[in-house]
Amino acid sequence: MIAREVREELVRLLGPRNLLDAPEDLVLYEYDGGVDKHRPEMVVFPRTTAEVSAIVKLTAKHGIPIVGRGAGTGLSGGAIPRAGGMTVSFSRMNRILELDLKNERAVLQPGVVNLDITLAVQGDKYFYAPDPSSQRACTIGGNVAENAGGPHTLAYGVTTNHVLGLELVLLDGSIVRIGGKETDLPGLDLVGLFTGSEGTMGFVTEITVRLMRAPEAVKTCLAIYDTALDCGRTVAEITARAITPAAVEMLDGVMLRMVEEATHAGYPMDAEAVLLIELEGLNEQVEEQVEQIREACAACNAREFRVAKSAEERDLLWKGRKNAFGAVGRVSPFYYVQDGVVPRTKIAPTLEFIKGVSERYGLSISNIFHAGDGNLHPIILFDARKPGDTDRAKAAGDEILNFCISVGGSITGEHGVGMEKMELMENLFSPDSLDMIKAFKNLFDPECRLNPGKVLPTGRGCMEIRHKPLTEANML
Amino acid sequence: MIAREVREELVRLLGPRNLLDAPEDLVLYEYDGGVDKHRPEMVVFPRTTAEVSAIVKLTAKHGIPIVGRGAGTGLSGGAIPRAGGMTVSFSRMNRILELDLKNERAVLQPGVVNLDITLAVQGDKYFYAPDPSSQRACTIGGNVAENAGGPHTLAYGVTTNHVLGLELVLLDGSIVRIGGKETDLPGLDLVGLFTGSEGTMGFVTEITVRLMRAPEAVKTCLAIYDTALDCGRTVAEITARAITPAAVEMLDGVMLRMVEEATHAGYPMDAEAVLLIELEGLNEQVEEQVEQIREACAACNAREFRVAKSAEERDLLWKGRKNAFGAVGRVSPFYYVQDGVVPRTKIAPTLEFIKGVSERYGLSISNIFHAGDGNLHPIILFDARKPGDTDRAKAAGDEILNFCISVGGSITGEHGVGMEKMELMENLFSPDSLDMIKAFKNLFDPECRLNPGKVLPTGRGCMEIRHKPLTEANML
Repeated sequence: MIAREVREELVRLLGPRNLLDAPEDLVLYEYDGGVDKHRPEMVVFPRTTAEVSAIVKLTAKHGIPIVGRGAGTGLSGGAIPRAGGMTVSFSRMNRILELDLKNERAVLQPGVVNLDITLAVQGDKYFYAPDPSSQRACTIGGNVAENAGGPHTLAYGVTTNHVLGLELVLLDGSIVRIGGKETDLPGLDLVGLFTGSEGTMGFVTEITVRLMRAPEAVKTCLAIYDTALDCGRTVAEITARAITPAAVEMLDGVMLRMVEEATHAGYPMDAEAVLLIELEGLNEQVEEQVEQIREACAACNAREFRVAKSAEERDLLWKGRKNAFGAVGRVSPFYYVQDGVVPRTKIAPTLEFIKGVSERYGLSISNIFHAGDGNLHPIILFDARKPGDTDRAKAAGDEILNFCISVGGSITGEHGVGMEKMELMENLFSPDSLDMIKAFKNLFDPECRLNPGKVLPTGRGCMEIRHKPLTEANML
Repeated sequence: MIAREVREELVRLLGPRNLLDAPEDLVLYEYDGGVDKHRPEMVVFPRTTAEVSAIVKLTAKHGIPIVGRGAGTGLSGGAIPRAGGMTVSFSRMNRILELDLKNERAVLQPGVVNLDITLAVQGDKYFYAPDPSSQRACTIGGNVAENAGGPHTLAYGVTTNHVLGLELVLLDGSIVRIGGKETDLPGLDLVGLFTGSEGTMGFVTEITVRLMRAPEAVKTCLAIYDTALDCGRTVAEITARAITPAAVEMLDGVMLRMVEEATHAGYPMDAEAVLLIELEGLNEQVEEQVEQIREACAACNAREFRVAKSAEERDLLWKGRKNAFGAVGRVSPFYYVQDGVVPRTKIAPTLEFIKGVSERYGLSISNIFHAGDGNLHPIILFDARKPGDTDRAKAAGDEILNFCISVGGSITGEHGVGMEKMELMENLFSPDSLDMIKAFKNLFDPECRLNPGKVLPTGRGCMEIRHKPLTEANML
């Protein structure tokens, strides 16, 4: 329970319109894009770094748990205030502070929407590279917290490869700047450490990112297959030919049909899998690479290979891909998105394993992959209203992720660990490694007030919150 | 003074041939590639991770300072045992443990020489990208400690962009593995934190790196200028044309003449500056880019533009560049290499500033740059036997680095801070940021035994060692 005097102080500090604590308002802040839920006691909307610092100092004085929130599109529960307390929403810190095109940098407040960065500079032929599927909604602050990826990270890397400087508010309210506009500053790589720390070490209040020059030419190809195995083999074949496309996305038959019904993008309804391949670079280079990719696909029995003839056709194909989760939502009211990673050479056996899991659990599993990275997003369809279905979905997901670990992969490529996968961390890291992560967390948050109950497994984290099993009660 | 019982225990542990403590042996380990010196009391040569752990436990028991050492080619004093104690040389842990070409990874012991990685895989058309000028001698363990760069980091990034997994021995002797073969594992980016921590947080005993596919075509161009300013402007002009060459190296007239006299690589003796530009990629792409670069150079008044006609001509040009420090050594017995970074748009004014410093101090300063990165290596020639010359060289160097900071740059691009530039850290970072670095260091080394007196400025570091002024006594 947050004390009345805290509320009064916050109203004085932020104004009455920058604070919510009525139950009908709070209910909107109890979930994110994942499957977990917990309601905050209060949501505040700072507009400046100084306000964030004042809020943090006030929560320190009163021992209130505190969690940051961007657009709430996260898929691992990173913004869920599982110990209650206060949620700090960055939606009113949404200004682009500086565009320095000569040095290819932008300085941003955390609430800037990912796509808006590219929209602000594309007239000058620049872009911001990491492009999560949620890029029309998700914000750069959340991207930094989760080290977000996207289809084009195959060529350009994830968020951490594009963040150069951060302004932080630490748990004592102090304001610290780390990094800057230059790359590879001396001293420890603190910017790298904070990027992907999932909101457990401090609040990010300003971000300096790298801008990239738009390529001269872009070509988008669609390869269509009668078996998922042939489709998976093509990815290794492309790598063997030493081509790194900007993106290699795979959609299986179940997903294709859902996407096509929702978007009419021109995906085949009868195929077992497709690859969506994007090539970027100079005109001549891209033309040549299209032919090499065509050969690689043919060598792996693609039944058809199309190159998008116009920007409109290209946009439509990508609209299908980026709205895939929406398309799933039309078919199944409940779905559970996984985020496994496997070596590229293990994609085909992993697909086989997922098929087996689907059969054993009697659950439809649809696959959509950043195939070039070996980053799999199996989507498990279930019905939370059916007794036992939710637990089965969760168990099926864990089985898939443990398989990813067993073939030398990992449990998240871009969605983060959050509260969803923290118990699996013990299967991926040694006790020593987990202790090291805990020691870092404790340095910044000795009282365990900042985003408690995330990332580290129960018993090793800073707070003993049992991972609440997914039940009908907290799903509906 | 290391106790007799420690020596006896080490002889038992390592054998008598893996330990040195005679003064005539130790004298070889009191310096590295920089200008500072301090003699260790003992040098040990472990062959396994278990031996490293046993050595560390023994020094913990007896409170002995301990410092790691690769090939001793570092340029900021990172391997200098300034508190005495024990130096751990990794020269006998020099095996390539695994080459996993399918997944484009290599697993290495720390003493593997940088160039040997590429030599081991070039038959299969792979290479390891970071290529310090010292790559024929320097070792991957030292590269990780210093986050080493090289000419080709313009296109490929520095060491931290290529290291995926580490095995560590911490100060209590525990052996911890962090990261692995996959990129972007969940949890904190501990691999990124350790890479570039300059040997102050633990010993690296195994390294997993990314291998890259060799490009189809490589072209090396030489552009020759009558003024350094035109040469500097070309770098911004190339960026403006949205080309990222694999390398853009700049050598000024003083450097050119020294290099040509030493290597007969075909550099012009009468020019004021040259750019050495390397392009990599597909045949067609590289051909087109050569023409674009030719235009950019012509637009900035290059008086001549050559493309190397053969692999031999290319190798000769690079031999000249990579042996530049050797060429300087032929002319001046003492030189002081700086490692500043400035935004690309500030290269020309920085060159002007350096010229002024050279005149004011009456010292020849020769410039060799990773120009594409804005990473400058002014080389200050001096004579340590001349009274006052050494102090003047040091003061001139500090003035140049402070200028780099003032235009938005940094004091090291790839050589590290070490003991050479620690006092300048206060000019680059806020007290809060320095405290944060110190807190991390203390987590791993609460007793301040590991590579003490490095990176953090006096009074902020973990040990109060005054930065000994450069004097004739410790230079000669």
